Amino acid sequence: MKALVYHGPGHRSLEDRAKPDLRAAGDAIVKITKTTICGTDLHILRGDVPTCAPGRTLGHEGVGVVDTTGTGVTAFRPGDRVLISCISACGKCAYCRRGMYSHCTTGGWILGHTIDGTQAEYVRIPHADTSLYPIPPRADEEGLVMLSDILPTGFECGVLNGKVEPGATVAIVGAGPIGLAALLTAQFYSPGDLIVIDLDDKRLDVARRLGATHTINSSDGRAAEKVRTLTADRGVDTAIEAVGVPATFLLCEDLVAPGGTIANIGVHGAKVDLHLERLWSANITITTRLVDTVTTPMLLKTVHSRKLDPARLITHRFRLDEILDAYKTFEHATSTGALKVIIEA
Amino acid sequence: MKALVYHGPGHRSLEDRAKPDLRAAGDAIVKITKTTICGTDLHILRGDVPTCAPGRTLGHEGVGVVDTTGTGVTAFRPGDRVLISCISACGKCAYCRRGMYSHCTTGGWILGHTIDGTQAEYVRIPHADTSLYPIPPRADEEGLVMLSDILPTGFECGVLNGKVEPGATVAIVGAGPIGLAALLTAQFYSPGDLIVIDLDDKRLDVARRLGATHTINSSDGRAAEKVRTLTADRGVDTAIEAVGVPATFLLCEDLVAPGGTIANIGVHGAKVDLHLERLWSANITITTRLVDTVTTPMLLKTVHSRKLDPARLITHRFRLDEILDAYKTFEHATSTGALKVIIEA
Amino acid sequence: MKALVYHGPGHRSLEDRAKPDLRAAGDAIVKITKTTICGTDLHILRGDVPTCAPGRTLGHEGVGVVDTTGTGVTAFRPGDRVLISCISACGKCAYCRRGMYSHCTTGGWILGHTIDGTQAEYVRIPHADTSLYPIPPRADEEGLVMLSDILPTGFECGVLNGKVEPGATVAIVGAGPIGLAALLTAQFYSPGDLIVIDLDDKRLDVARRLGATHTINSSDGRAAEKVRTLTADRGVDTAIEAVGVPATFLLCEDLVAPGGTIANIGVHGAKVDLHLERLWSANITITTRLVDTVTTPMLLKTVHSRKLDPARLITHRFRLDEILDAYKTFEHATSTGALKVIIEA
Amino acid sequence: MKALVYHGPGHRSLEDRAKPDLRAAGDAIVKITKTTICGTDLHILRGDVPTCAPGRTLGHEGVGVVDTTGTGVTAFRPGDRVLISCISACGKCAYCRRGMYSHCTTGGWILGHTIDGTQAEYVRIPHADTSLYPIPPRADEEGLVMLSDILPTGFECGVLNGKVEPGATVAIVGAGPIGLAALLTAQFYSPGDLIVIDLDDKRLDVARRLGATHTINSSDGRAAEKVRTLTADRGVDTAIEAVGVPATFLLCEDLVAPGGTIANIGVHGAKVDLHLERLWSANITITTRLVDTVTTPMLLKTVHSRKLDPARLITHRFRLDEILDAYKTFEHATSTGALKVIIEA
Repeated sequence: MKALVYHGPGHRSLEDRAKPDLRAAGDAIVKITKTTICGTDLHILRGDVPTCAPGRTLGHEGVGVVDTTGTGVTAFRPGDRVLISCISACGKCAYCRRGMYSHCTTGGWILGHTIDGTQAEYVRIPHADTSLYPIPPRADEEGLVMLSDILPTGFECGVLNGKVEPGATVAIVGAGPIGLAALLTAQFYSPGDLIVIDLDDKRLDVARRLGATHTINSSDGRAAEKVRTLTADRGVDTAIEAVGVPATFLLCEDLVAPGGTIANIGVHGAKVDLHLERLWSANITITTRLVDTVTTPMLLKTVHSRKLDPARLITHRFRLDEILDAYKTFEHATSTGALKVIIEA
Repeated sequence: MKALVYHGPGHRSLEDRAKPDLRAAGDAIVKITKTTICGTDLHILRGDVPTCAPGRTLGHEGVGVVDTTGTGVTAFRPGDRVLISCISACGKCAYCRRGMYSHCTTGGWILGHTIDGTQAEYVRIPHADTSLYPIPPRADEEGLVMLSDILPTGFECGVLNGKVEPGATVAIVGAGPIGLAALLTAQFYSPGDLIVIDLDDKRLDVARRLGATHTINSSDGRAAEKVRTLTADRGVDTAIEAVGVPATFLLCEDLVAPGGTIANIGVHGAKVDLHLERLWSANITITTRLVDTVTTPMLLKTVHSRKLDPARLITHRFRLDEILDAYKTFEHATSTGALKVIIEA
Repeated sequence: MKALVYHGPGHRSLEDRAKPDLRAAGDAIVKITKTTICGTDLHILRGDVPTCAPGRTLGHEGVGVVDTTGTGVTAFRPGDRVLISCISACGKCAYCRRGMYSHCTTGGWILGHTIDGTQAEYVRIPHADTSLYPIPPRADEEGLVMLSDILPTGFECGVLNGKVEPGATVAIVGAGPIGLAALLTAQFYSPGDLIVIDLDDKRLDVARRLGATHTINSSDGRAAEKVRTLTADRGVDTAIEAVGVPATFLLCEDLVAPGGTIANIGVHGAKVDLHLERLWSANITITTRLVDTVTTPMLLKTVHSRKLDPARLITHRFRLDEILDAYKTFEHATSTGALKVIIEA
Repeated sequence: MKALVYHGPGHRSLEDRAKPDLRAAGDAIVKITKTTICGTDLHILRGDVPTCAPGRTLGHEGVGVVDTTGTGVTAFRPGDRVLISCISACGKCAYCRRGMYSHCTTGGWILGHTIDGTQAEYVRIPHADTSLYPIPPRADEEGLVMLSDILPTGFECGVLNGKVEPGATVAIVGAGPIGLAALLTAQFYSPGDLIVIDLDDKRLDVARRLGATHTINSSDGRAAEKVRTLTADRGVDTAIEAVGVPATFLLCEDLVAPGGTIANIGVHGAKVDLHLERLWSANITITTRLVDTVTTPMLLKTVHSRKLDPARLITHRFRLDEILDAYKTFEHATSTGALKVIIEA
């Protein structure tokens, strides 16, 4: 079968690999119908993720059809159309029982990381019963690819951890795909002002189309000041960090109102300064989270009832044999305007 | 009347001051019967609190008897025995309605800070109806002085924000009065391991008497390692920071388990390093809080039902005319073993 | 001044009464600009509320302008435009501190009940600081009358107690003004199916216009069966009872799914059968609540940010001297199609 | 092997049955070391549980040693000492993912009910990975039998659903084993007054030894009145129903304070009167629940840290070949003083 394989920093290729086999009673083999590329894949290709070894098939998102199942799998049968979660969860360990699938002792984020992933014709899914979700009849499969990772990430790490409430003021720092996923799902809770901050005017245009009530280009260094003006000098109830660098986290520290929350989504590569000399008395909460995908059933219901249209995040479409082009388009998002690219296998 | 007055960094004196007058309809004048000294008073005397101007009568804790009340006061009458909250709350503003009395727009921590305080024979209490609490008949007044500040601080900022649960593992970093207040009130929720960490063996002895299941002297720099050993390499569910310096906050970052909480109580004078490059995916929560004293009614009930004995924090007793000795005893806690000192007015 | 006065069961008249005076430091006198009639006013007129004595000016809803204030009032001044809460709250008692304003020991529902109310040119508001809300500039005053009672009632007793969630299935039994208020505010949380059940097809038409995804006329006794069909035999996550008779509560018992909630809003005059022989193992929650109006600030924000348009509940308008006509229109809602009627004072 | 078999209302016998076999990949066969009898077993023998067919081996509690495991079992191996949960949970279905194991679509309460149970030398446990719990080294196995059902039931249905809080007032109606399990676990949260109500003075003596602060014999019909006196006419924050008949539920309706909770544990055979004509405005919550045993890991921690001593509920011990005597002792609890009887297999 064809697979996109990582060969160390800067190197990748689309090549022929053996179709995966079942290895444990709980495994399923899934034939991929659609997959996509994540910012994390780019991190791997830059060499930022040393736990991902050369030779690995990349990809942790996708939808497909169950091909074969192990003897312990009871929830799925060959032929079932399934959504693949980016997080594999055994459903049994202490973390899984608390809903912290991200820290599953035999799972977590392993697909396209420590085991072969979804940018291929077939993928082996461990713990299939608790890592796959049935695709409802008549669902738009393409849109559901957004539920593998990006929408639960924006929702769980940003919106739920950020405790977004009706009428509240929310700032989302970063209008990339993850920030926009937070923007879409924040609207489940009818916040009042929904401010999106980024350096790229084109992404801010998208944010306005997707529901932002205000957008701020932070390139002049005056974003915090502008938010103060918008909020009568109070700050925001929820600040969602969707970039992952010190400057954007610091901006969130400046934006958050007393009693508010900073919900971090960004993948950080360096420590940040936490200004406790100012914040110790501000009654704030800071949260971090690797997505658990425990809200996938809820998100599927919101898609089904048309409260959420995940396909709005899709900008480009490719075939699997064009995946190197897809990577280029995604890597040069500033010029291509790419948000999420669909790859049809 | 006699009052302990701050005269700029390093200077204080016990002197005669005019008895305070009612200034607003919601004010009450309270005759102090017992007060105490807080670590914050020492901060003021070191010049660390520029918002406290020279000439200020210090003190924000105490019990007393209502002397006179303004025309708007309905909950108290002259002669009522009352507990004074360290936080004045109007009960009307947006923050008060959310239970964030600490950020009351016309109150908060003002006693012995921006208005004259309780280390005197009389004190004026603004917003008396929502800043005083009736002392139940037969209550131990001396113990109740601990409910002005230290016990709600340990409980709200440490235990409640830290979400202490039955069977959970809790570390309290700092065995000073505030850390011990967290230690006493954490036991309301029956945690399993209750680990107290400090540099002072004498304070650790006190911690064991007050309920710590394990104590660790961190002077060898191996506290994190020892906690890892105690917790099968998992870390603690709740890490309570009760010191207020970068090293102790960093220790909490090292101690907290995935899914756990760092509840900050310490008053910080400098920023700290937040290691998001490691913690972004750890599903942790960090909280800060200036005590709101919204749990004072609950704490009064726990004292009444003997679930909490606040007097265990009292080590020394003085008369108001000995208050300069009381300060010396409190300042030299390492040698005197002082935790909280009672001053009888 | 003119006032609508209750004179015992079946008797009311619009008559001249003395303008009210300040009686306590916390009182304000408010000149009414707009008021309305509530189903509870009809209950009083039918003699169902013995705690309301003849001679009482009715009405507990309205907006107006502050005329005079007592010496203890600090949040409002003469000339301020205000929203009057149907619940008076001292903000000081144990219930108020818990956010249970409905059970305030010196307030609660007293307006137009145990003290004179708002269907008059002027009204005395006790505990003005915590029972009035400032009307924002440029707000639609007429719509805000709906925030005195009906919208917080639908929201607090129905939607919040009912824990409505994104994608969830909600049934509202009763499409009168209160049921419709629950319908409007349930949409803050983006439920999936939002089913409204009533006996009156015209009200069901309104429900569809206001956001119901399904409506069921229950006159054939098959509502429960139809909901089972809609929900794949599972039942609803939230059943909101907005009528107040045994049959509708029983219907909610039949509708609720395992793990679901029955949120009662209805004012009941008789006991109901609770089928614990079936429900003891169904992991359900039943809640009751007299509205606390603690969410008024949140609702004001949702109106300001156009997430809620309260004026959609208004069907008729009258002048105060036409209030007897307004009562007739409201009493004969089936034929007049009246939901809420505005009375301009 | 020996097994206690139900043969229709009034009939049971200890007889030889075939040792159970593995039937599904997720099954385990457990050799029972200790089991016990539950009030539900008596209900079955009285014919109150028609879903339990004659020929069934009874029993849903116990500890033992894993004998064999199916190919899908990963968490346990032969030789492991295990606690058997009374609730079997697949860990995969929508209910299990919400922590509602009691409503697992292929599990729930099936042991000793719809499949053979634990009052035997061996038992087959479906969904073993999520229905068994490892017994820690050095744990008291006998005490852990109380964690199969009775302690999670009292804790989840009574204490957690009842939202017991520090300093709060709690009434437990019924001092049988389940009521006493609620009594023991309520103390995790340090309530103030902990009132136990029963008709049997001997059980009330036990309740006082196990931590009740007040006991009331309700045989004179004055229990509600006495609770009113104890609570200054306010009622209790939490009323736990641990009997299951209309009279005791009605007593809870009389006891509960405004804002309080009635947490039902009792297994009811008939409907009850819910006095909504009085309670509609009382801001109360009523909960029902079949135990989910989701707190078993937490309870194991509280046993390990000596916050809970489950063995205090054990009054008698028998061998498996004496199980008919054990039943008699348990059935005649009033004369024998039996709470829980241990049966050694």
